[in-house]
Amino acid sequence: MKAYREMSKEELSVLKSQLDREFDEAKAKGLKLDMSRGKPSVAQLDMGMDIFDALNSESDMTSREGADVRNYGVLDGLAEAKQMMADIMGTSAENVIVYGNASLNVMYDAVSSSMTHGVMGSTPWCKLDKVKFLCPAPGYDRHFAITEFFGIEMITVPMTPQGPDMDMVEKLVSEDESIKGIWCVPKYSNPQGYTYSDETVRRFAALKPAAKDFRIYWDNAYAVHHLYEDRQDQLLEILSECEKAGNPDMVYEFCSTSKISFSGAGVAAIASSKPNLDCIRKAMTIQTIGYDKINQLRHVRYFKDFNGIREHMKKHAALMRPKFEAVLSVLDRELSGAGVGTWTKPNGGYFISFEAMEGCAKAIVAKCREAGVVLTSAGATYPYGIDPRDSNIRIAPSFPTPEEMAMATDLFVLCVKLVSVEKLLAC
Amino acid sequence: MKAYREMSKEELSVLKSQLDREFDEAKAKGLKLDMSRGKPSVAQLDMGMDIFDALNSESDMTSREGADVRNYGVLDGLAEAKQMMADIMGTSAENVIVYGNASLNVMYDAVSSSMTHGVMGSTPWCKLDKVKFLCPAPGYDRHFAITEFFGIEMITVPMTPQGPDMDMVEKLVSEDESIKGIWCVPKYSNPQGYTYSDETVRRFAALKPAAKDFRIYWDNAYAVHHLYEDRQDQLLEILSECEKAGNPDMVYEFCSTSKISFSGAGVAAIASSKPNLDCIRKAMTIQTIGYDKINQLRHVRYFKDFNGIREHMKKHAALMRPKFEAVLSVLDRELSGAGVGTWTKPNGGYFISFEAMEGCAKAIVAKCREAGVVLTSAGATYPYGIDPRDSNIRIAPSFPTPEEMAMATDLFVLCVKLVSVEKLLAC
Repeated sequence: MKAYREMSKEELSVLKSQLDREFDEAKAKGLKLDMSRGKPSVAQLDMGMDIFDALNSESDMTSREGADVRNYGVLDGLAEAKQMMADIMGTSAENVIVYGNASLNVMYDAVSSSMTHGVMGSTPWCKLDKVKFLCPAPGYDRHFAITEFFGIEMITVPMTPQGPDMDMVEKLVSEDESIKGIWCVPKYSNPQGYTYSDETVRRFAALKPAAKDFRIYWDNAYAVHHLYEDRQDQLLEILSECEKAGNPDMVYEFCSTSKISFSGAGVAAIASSKPNLDCIRKAMTIQTIGYDKINQLRHVRYFKDFNGIREHMKKHAALMRPKFEAVLSVLDRELSGAGVGTWTKPNGGYFISFEAMEGCAKAIVAKCREAGVVLTSAGATYPYGIDPRDSNIRIAPSFPTPEEMAMATDLFVLCVKLVSVEKLLAC
Repeated sequence: MKAYREMSKEELSVLKSQLDREFDEAKAKGLKLDMSRGKPSVAQLDMGMDIFDALNSESDMTSREGADVRNYGVLDGLAEAKQMMADIMGTSAENVIVYGNASLNVMYDAVSSSMTHGVMGSTPWCKLDKVKFLCPAPGYDRHFAITEFFGIEMITVPMTPQGPDMDMVEKLVSEDESIKGIWCVPKYSNPQGYTYSDETVRRFAALKPAAKDFRIYWDNAYAVHHLYEDRQDQLLEILSECEKAGNPDMVYEFCSTSKISFSGAGVAAIASSKPNLDCIRKAMTIQTIGYDKINQLRHVRYFKDFNGIREHMKKHAALMRPKFEAVLSVLDRELSGAGVGTWTKPNGGYFISFEAMEGCAKAIVAKCREAGVVLTSAGATYPYGIDPRDSNIRIAPSFPTPEEMAMATDLFVLCVKLVSVEKLLAC
């Protein structure tokens, strides 16, 4: 394929007429497809239905340590649920507290309680003039929404295939005491599907933050969400790395089964050092009478052990892989060599990230919507919803079928071409 | 029975020797009974086990409005769950948001978000020099724990059988702009089992608070928790009363099914005005990806409608009544006329409140513990855990069997007598 940039204005005009016709035809099809969010498909949800047989009689209701899971008590999670979540994160059960269904809520609470009560005895952030967070971007819009909601200033850090730009992270964190945290999706990152390299993880663990209450918000959302049996990213375990580097209290790790069991009714957890967890437990005694232990035990009884989770996630991969491949094959076929965009080819996670020509993302997303395909809003992957280059687009293949994903991507590449041609013609 | 106060020192000494002997005998029995918390019994939890058959196949998983309850979406609760919780509170579904399992967490979040973001646009409380709450007492220790945790100054308001001392509430609230809330358990109050009179509710609704962001925290925890068929307290519906009085936004009402279905795995809700709920919904979009809708739907399918809840609560009453009666019959038999304490005889709820002679509560609780019966710590029913008269003791009959409750109360009255005699001898 000839690169668009090498085409003459005439060639571009001819191409544009042709693409306009194709777009009108596509629009006439009346598509209605949504690839805006990392939402599990119905087939994926159906996969886990036997979980409801795992726990339903009186005799099932006792935890390993003898608690009646229907009653009050066991504030920080069942021992067996801690073990399950620890296995997912690659840490040990003593480092874990188990919550309700949403890890986002756990992250929100971590920020919220830092605002009102500080971190392990530090000054509450609401008493400080300025609090800042580092935000590797493109990243997860709901992370950025939390810090924005609390009036925390967000500083964008560029992402690379090895993780955030660590030179910048190290410099900023060591110089500025008002920087209290950094948002990370270290494995199969949202939206690029990158996994932080060992060197990146070690540099994280060895940070020398100016702020004693600086914490790494390590959202390990896709820890076991591989797409392939033979190509799986490995992430170095952050808690032990931090401990080795003399920073045992520097990280809060989050995970959930939202994309393992049910996105609305899974189990979430935090992993951290004992001093951090003790501080959290102290607040928990005030905050709640406890989380849903029936659902915790239901999960453990159903998955049995980490091997059970791995087996389940193979089925998960078998559902997701064709969707990713459908997208990638259309992108390869239609855009290779055109020079109008690059895209990631992740080994896991829930997203493919597309980098359009500068200044084109918003127009592409709008064009897609015009013809019935909904994408994540352009800019959503950057702090404050503003992508300074207006080029990143997040593609979420999880919900539609592979056939629908192919159709949606056909339209997507058409819109990419059209908007790119218009951009080049306007230069 | 002769009143202890009318006994001579000699009579008291004889009585004390006898009571000491009885105590030693009781202690030798090695009792191990817990009536410290309002924890459901195993029989009560067993009562609701069919709920796990209510929802377990793919075809069950669609809500009335067509949502797949296993997936993301429907942030503020299923329509049918809103209806169920609205029926419990006696309000309408549009006034309700449904949460996870713990209403305590909803209350905590209400205070926490007022600290960080204010109330409907008011100055965040963390930016104010002083924030105060009124605390009708004796009251619920976990309410007081939340406000204490946030450094909110608590002002004790005396309780009466008609509710809090409303002269004091009206005066304080209208004069002091730093008073931002009041904790209420308006029906079958914790620990006295009092239900606010219609006049009290109307005076609440007609408050003229100096603070625009003053809210009544109306914890309707025992809305349907009657003990008798023929003696049931009625509580005036607060939201409509507030609206009539021109104060539509002044109340947050809380409730849960913790003591209807399962104390660890029920459904909680808030009821309030649309402007309040809109404000809460706005924060929810940041705070969470949504609560467990499978559990919400499971509850609705199991209870079917409000009639189903009422029928269930008749069985609940049949379990609780003998426990309450066991306590009351021992108290009546052993303490009537002795003048060493008074106690409440509630028509519902989870507690009996005992008022010992001034300065005796701590000693009675300690004495009971010495012989193997655990009561709620003396003082717990007052802000900061300090009962200025050291006289209130909360009795929680829900967990033990009626026979165990009778045994525990036998010991309790013995300790009351003993401590009272010692007190009178020391005068």
